[in-house]
Amino acid sequence: MRLRNNPKANEILENHKDVVVLNTKEHKGHWRNIFDNDNPIFIEIGMGKGDFIIENAKQYPNINFIGVEKFPSVIVGALKKYDDSSYDLKNLRFMKEDALFLNEVFADNEISRIYLNFSDPWPKKKHAKRRLTSHTFLPIYQKLLKPDGELILKTDNRILFEFSLISFQQFHMDFHDICLDLHHSDGYEDNIQTEYERKFSPFGPIYRIVTTFKGE
Amino acid sequence: MRLRNNPKANEILENHKDVVVLNTKEHKGHWRNIFDNDNPIFIEIGMGKGDFIIENAKQYPNINFIGVEKFPSVIVGALKKYDDSSYDLKNLRFMKEDALFLNEVFADNEISRIYLNFSDPWPKKKHAKRRLTSHTFLPIYQKLLKPDGELILKTDNRILFEFSLISFQQFHMDFHDICLDLHHSDGYEDNIQTEYERKFSPFGPIYRIVTTFKGE
Repeated sequence: MRLRNNPKANEILENHKDVVVLNTKEHKGHWRNIFDNDNPIFIEIGMGKGDFIIENAKQYPNINFIGVEKFPSVIVGALKKYDDSSYDLKNLRFMKEDALFLNEVFADNEISRIYLNFSDPWPKKKHAKRRLTSHTFLPIYQKLLKPDGELILKTDNRILFEFSLISFQQFHMDFHDICLDLHHSDGYEDNIQTEYERKFSPFGPIYRIVTTFKGE
Repeated sequence: MRLRNNPKANEILENHKDVVVLNTKEHKGHWRNIFDNDNPIFIEIGMGKGDFIIENAKQYPNINFIGVEKFPSVIVGALKKYDDSSYDLKNLRFMKEDALFLNEVFADNEISRIYLNFSDPWPKKKHAKRRLTSHTFLPIYQKLLKPDGELILKTDNRILFEFSLISFQQFHMDFHDICLDLHHSDGYEDNIQTEYERKFSPFGPIYRIVTTFKGE
């Protein structure tokens, strides 16, 4: 269960300024200064408990990773994992932010890749606009991503994946790789699992697509 | 097993002129005369044993159906089913034809819908061009289909479906409906099964997509 109402969450975030970036909008266009290098920046929108992005930061020290999460209490969970990790991950940051406002946080072309992992499927049709792959969000991603920057979606939710394929096509995005059963396919041995994925993948296929936005 | 080498197959086709159209190219642009009406014409490319198209012809008397099949001996199988059927299906025809030559058989915009059901997946990468959803065939379909004419693909072959999604996107087709588990989804109760589908659907999901070609 997500502890959305942990009253101490914001306080905990403020005490982790080494990894949690506060005042995110002040860094727009200058995220390279946060990391003090010019390495590509990959973000995960909705990082949840942080397994995926922490493991990525460990495996790919030459990439900078930012975990974006809407709920402070969820970030607290990721911070616990971060603290328990014996690594000193200079290439990892977390931020509390709503995906809706990411163009106020990142300048155009500032980000090289976006990961969406097991995003909230918002199963009711009337809530489809809230899905992170809807046309509400795609223009936001297009702006902050570099022209060849990838949007990579992974989910076990069939309805969300079906919806996303159509949403991406209607937004004229390019499809590069589609896998409809990630855990039973060759060529994905480097897949980094989320905690949710480890738990639920035995019960059905994991879907994944790699897409880019069309250049102008 | 397909009886690809039934030497009597061609003879059997010639004895079924009521339902098998011979000299197909002579009818280009005039298929309405074959059916003696102006109803839309739907074709199935690779009709196999014919279950799907025969059942469609029964259920939709106001649509004309043409089952296209490359191998005469396979059509013989469909003819047996047709003969066993107690229906007099004036809206159904079969033809022996290779999909590669369909623009010699149908005029531009002559067809209203194409069905591809459980097409040969040609699993080796070097044979990808032979897949009926490759860019070898899409321009052929685009020509013979009406501007809003649908191409509907149904398959249980994951590799073929993944390939097809990318192939369709790269051909700038429009996606209208995608289902990644047809037999366990609401809203597809009118799905007409093929013989193959009845046999193999318990072993894995049936994938389906409805697409159209972009108008100019």
